[in-house]
Amino acid sequence: MSSKIEDGRSRVVIENVRPEVDGGRFAIKRTVGEQVQVEADVFADGHDVIRCLLLHRAETGRAWRGVAMQAIGNDRWRGSFTVDKLGRHVYTVMAWIDQFFTWRHDLARRNDAADIALALRIGATLVRDTAGRANGTARARLEEFAAALDTASTPEDGKRVGGDAELGELMARHGERRFPTTYAKVLAVTVEPERARYSTWYELFPRSCSDDGRHGRFKDCERRLPYIAAMGFDVLYMPPIHPIGTMFRKGPNNALVAAAGDPGSPWAIGADDGGHKAVHAELGTLDDFRHLVAAAREHGIDIAMDIAFQCAPDHPYVKEHPDWFRWRPDGTVQYAENPPKKYQDIYPFDFESDDWRGLWAELASVFGFWIDEGVRIFRVDNPHTKAFPFWEWAIAALKRAHPDLIFLAEAFTRPKVMQRLAKLGYTQSYTYFAWRNTRHELTEYFTELAHGPGREYFRPNVWPNTPDILTEYLQFGGRPAFIARLVLAATLAASYGIYGPAFELCEREAREPGSEEYRDSEKYQLRSWDLDRPDSLAALIARVNRARRENPALQRDGSLAFYPVDNESIICYGKTTPDGDNAIVTVVNLDPYHVQSGWVELDTAALGIDAHSPYQMHELLTGARYLWSGPRNFVRLDPQRSPAHVFRLRRRVRSERDFDYFL
Amino acid sequence: MSSKIEDGRSRVVIENVRPEVDGGRFAIKRTVGEQVQVEADVFADGHDVIRCLLLHRAETGRAWRGVAMQAIGNDRWRGSFTVDKLGRHVYTVMAWIDQFFTWRHDLARRNDAADIALALRIGATLVRDTAGRANGTARARLEEFAAALDTASTPEDGKRVGGDAELGELMARHGERRFPTTYAKVLAVTVEPERARYSTWYELFPRSCSDDGRHGRFKDCERRLPYIAAMGFDVLYMPPIHPIGTMFRKGPNNALVAAAGDPGSPWAIGADDGGHKAVHAELGTLDDFRHLVAAAREHGIDIAMDIAFQCAPDHPYVKEHPDWFRWRPDGTVQYAENPPKKYQDIYPFDFESDDWRGLWAELASVFGFWIDEGVRIFRVDNPHTKAFPFWEWAIAALKRAHPDLIFLAEAFTRPKVMQRLAKLGYTQSYTYFAWRNTRHELTEYFTELAHGPGREYFRPNVWPNTPDILTEYLQFGGRPAFIARLVLAATLAASYGIYGPAFELCEREAREPGSEEYRDSEKYQLRSWDLDRPDSLAALIARVNRARRENPALQRDGSLAFYPVDNESIICYGKTTPDGDNAIVTVVNLDPYHVQSGWVELDTAALGIDAHSPYQMHELLTGARYLWSGPRNFVRLDPQRSPAHVFRLRRRVRSERDFDYFL
Repeated sequence: MSSKIEDGRSRVVIENVRPEVDGGRFAIKRTVGEQVQVEADVFADGHDVIRCLLLHRAETGRAWRGVAMQAIGNDRWRGSFTVDKLGRHVYTVMAWIDQFFTWRHDLARRNDAADIALALRIGATLVRDTAGRANGTARARLEEFAAALDTASTPEDGKRVGGDAELGELMARHGERRFPTTYAKVLAVTVEPERARYSTWYELFPRSCSDDGRHGRFKDCERRLPYIAAMGFDVLYMPPIHPIGTMFRKGPNNALVAAAGDPGSPWAIGADDGGHKAVHAELGTLDDFRHLVAAAREHGIDIAMDIAFQCAPDHPYVKEHPDWFRWRPDGTVQYAENPPKKYQDIYPFDFESDDWRGLWAELASVFGFWIDEGVRIFRVDNPHTKAFPFWEWAIAALKRAHPDLIFLAEAFTRPKVMQRLAKLGYTQSYTYFAWRNTRHELTEYFTELAHGPGREYFRPNVWPNTPDILTEYLQFGGRPAFIARLVLAATLAASYGIYGPAFELCEREAREPGSEEYRDSEKYQLRSWDLDRPDSLAALIARVNRARRENPALQRDGSLAFYPVDNESIICYGKTTPDGDNAIVTVVNLDPYHVQSGWVELDTAALGIDAHSPYQMHELLTGARYLWSGPRNFVRLDPQRSPAHVFRLRRRVRSERDFDYFL
Repeated sequence: MSSKIEDGRSRVVIENVRPEVDGGRFAIKRTVGEQVQVEADVFADGHDVIRCLLLHRAETGRAWRGVAMQAIGNDRWRGSFTVDKLGRHVYTVMAWIDQFFTWRHDLARRNDAADIALALRIGATLVRDTAGRANGTARARLEEFAAALDTASTPEDGKRVGGDAELGELMARHGERRFPTTYAKVLAVTVEPERARYSTWYELFPRSCSDDGRHGRFKDCERRLPYIAAMGFDVLYMPPIHPIGTMFRKGPNNALVAAAGDPGSPWAIGADDGGHKAVHAELGTLDDFRHLVAAAREHGIDIAMDIAFQCAPDHPYVKEHPDWFRWRPDGTVQYAENPPKKYQDIYPFDFESDDWRGLWAELASVFGFWIDEGVRIFRVDNPHTKAFPFWEWAIAALKRAHPDLIFLAEAFTRPKVMQRLAKLGYTQSYTYFAWRNTRHELTEYFTELAHGPGREYFRPNVWPNTPDILTEYLQFGGRPAFIARLVLAATLAASYGIYGPAFELCEREAREPGSEEYRDSEKYQLRSWDLDRPDSLAALIARVNRARRENPALQRDGSLAFYPVDNESIICYGKTTPDGDNAIVTVVNLDPYHVQSGWVELDTAALGIDAHSPYQMHELLTGARYLWSGPRNFVRLDPQRSPAHVFRLRRRVRSERDFDYFL
């Protein structure tokens, strides 16, 4: 029998390494400064002592850095490292049987003088061999220890030398890593900017930003920036800003035929004056756009660009690259359809084109164009209707050059499709949040998002509304429903967004009964909004977003925990920072019509609340402070006044002057 | 940006294929004739129609066989194949977007006459292209269908032709598999003989088989075969049969010094007259052994050989291959130890030897030697104290040549170590059964074995006793405890074994209090047994094993389900065949001292019991028949009479002559 084993003496087994997505096929995700905690099953035959290292480096780097992993029981080991630079990093696990520490473990258990004498000779040799591989002081010290083992006057003396802490440290540093096993896979982590994890989005139609009914321009949009910044948003997302097709243009409320002067849908991209790399003339110039990007940045706001890979029939691509579309026997291009529905104003790209390489390159260059114009965040329209291999290739290539890019997948589709898009590289993902309304639905869904397998790669970005989604709950629940959904979105998820000003002005007229479309939707016509309306939620939104900014617990998703309430209409949950210092408890009345009250039951142990001491619940939306005690406390929420509490937990602390206060 | 993608037009995603062990690192296990049911997540962008094949073949074969997989909801697909030959088989999944079926799906939903006319032209082209790739009748029929699509007189007529069943079958068979995706991994299944799944083991010391106190020989063992066969065992496992070392030989009850004439432990292998490939002279010759193997086979019994890779100090290897052992500075070989415990009579092999390749080859040749002598089953002693890479290599190599081999891992150690041995190739594994006594322990453990991830590779072989394990439960519970543990082992697991005659004679004297060692253990001395004792369990064992032989439900583990009983001392569970025809329900009183009674609650739906009709419970140990009705029925078990019922469920059937009976 022949053997292809390289070195059969590598006796340690390493398996079940976590995190690992689909057997290492995809990277996990982190943001700069976060930890990657890695666990693995590591063991060998027999009972020799194992040492185990977590290895990590930047993907483009050469040298591995090693972090000692610790056994945590049941052959499981754990270690962690911090990712401090953007881009892809890689990690794996290495382990070996350590001769010295095995020897030392056995020595401590020996009680036969002859055995010990022999063991000391073996140990001296091990230490002396290691000295031969060390330099300077370490070498000298190791030689001294070897001599001490050889000349130990009594078994006890020898055991003492063998167990010496300094000897252990020297041997751990310089000892031979004999017959090491390295985990068969090198796993990857994509490190992204903080905004990938924590972001607050505001969507608006720039063409509706004028104050006087004319077609809004980027300059009008710029004037809106202080208003948006005052509400606490850090991402401003605009629907496509490209020339809008004229053929088959849709009229108001999605009318099949547009009247003269109707502006059309921004998602019908491309006309004679350009396509995905051009700016719609009525919005302004490319210079105006650049100016807007810069102005936004001064307000701490990133512009998010909408990338919708589809063409109006008059998009230049159709003439220049007919092979990127599917042609029908009658000589027309196959428009988008899902029989019996037809979308004659939209030509999808044919990802089975013979020139798929040319198509891919051009589409990637669209991102490249806007990256060059200063854009770093892309909201991608319906990515689930374009080939997955394209996205995986394009996102990887773009992020290799620009690791600070953020891609948000606008896919409202089947769970596995959404998961795949996240796995293959999308930074953030839209979710089913808009349609999760009951306590059970919200609890189940956000538990899955925060703690399910997707937590390593699927970053939810939750939206109570979008230009396509005006839910029944908002339509019928009115202002209390808007507030409840706002607070849920902002506190359940580290990233959320609203489509405004429709949201803050509680716009809730549907196009027709049973529809989630807005009546007189901005998708098809200009709108002007009275931002100064007294019932605007702008001030409340500002308070909610300030709570997010000031409380790091709300800036990540992993700590989410739900707490029981004895009233199904009330939901209660908490988030904490890893160190536990910052803890936020949110309580929302999900019933927009009636006052609801009940007893919430906090997990005081997990929240670090002393069972015998009252604590303060500082309500961040009103500023009110409540004194609570123990796990069970009473809440009462009137939807007409405020359907939600966002509490910051303040624990009682004794000052140096024996004066209690709440921190 | 450059691209290394081979064909970016393969739009289908295949992921989460199950079964798959450690990302495909290890094979799953089946026995000849069993099914492999495979599931996968399969989807693409958009809503095109996907077709999906489960591909499989013998590992050494060339051509894949394809089985259509069916969508079962939520983008999950399922298919299965039967493994009908020993050896390794491989499987994977392939899928593609089917143009024709996408076209047909859309056609059925079209309602615009112009659209339909155009669609029929497209369909005709698809069908005609496919005809060009088919031959004979298929080609002719496809051309006829293409013509019929082209000349359809009305939209309805065209839709009818497009939806024709024969056309669908022809296109499914001959249509182009365009831009197929194949799952990135080829997964393996090891197909083993039925006995790998269902086996009934009897362990005995051949040297105790004489009737007159002299050292037993293989010939004595042969005379014992009818007795063993009558009890229904199909594997006879003997401790090592090799020359026993004389240096540091242990005396009775593990005494440090043996007296002259003490036979020593069979696991202290090797002396001047040979090692692992020799036969202990007092047992007989190699010819005698061959004769025993053949004689056993005539009783339907396989001989299982004990392979213990360790050496007595006088094993020939020690002189011939000093480099296979670890030497100490005083010129002695390092014996086995776990300080402060010492085993001076045992030299372990050094798997870190420079000559590890030579060592591996020799150890594998030990198996080869006994395979040549007709042995097909090996019980491997303490495999967890030898290097895992060796086992993986050796078992794979041996099974490549002899796919009917069965390896049982005698590893009583940490869970992950036991799992690894099973994953790397061991056919069956010893378990923690001996120490699982309460209902909670048994339920939890056997649920994990039958339904946990290990079910694909870890085949339990459960033993109520072994020469090393005389549990407290048996020591103190007496004969009722032996019966309870026998029935539990035989009905919870498709493979089980007992160490006899100690078991059937209820031998239960421990060497000392708190010890699980037998007093006057056969490991260190000869014993003679009175097999005719009236209290022997032999007849009961025969009935239990006949129940196993006659009821295929007991011959596999996957169907195990536990049923509630309102008395903690009673455990109740069932096993069924995949078709549900054969169903066994076992009830055991776990309290060996007291009568226990209670109401069991069967899962009548799962057992196929009609809620409105009585059914018969045919007790297979006594032959008694009880009429039960509904899920809840009363049981009462007197440990002094019989602590266990093994019921075969017989459902009421109406004969042609209107006469009810139970089948």
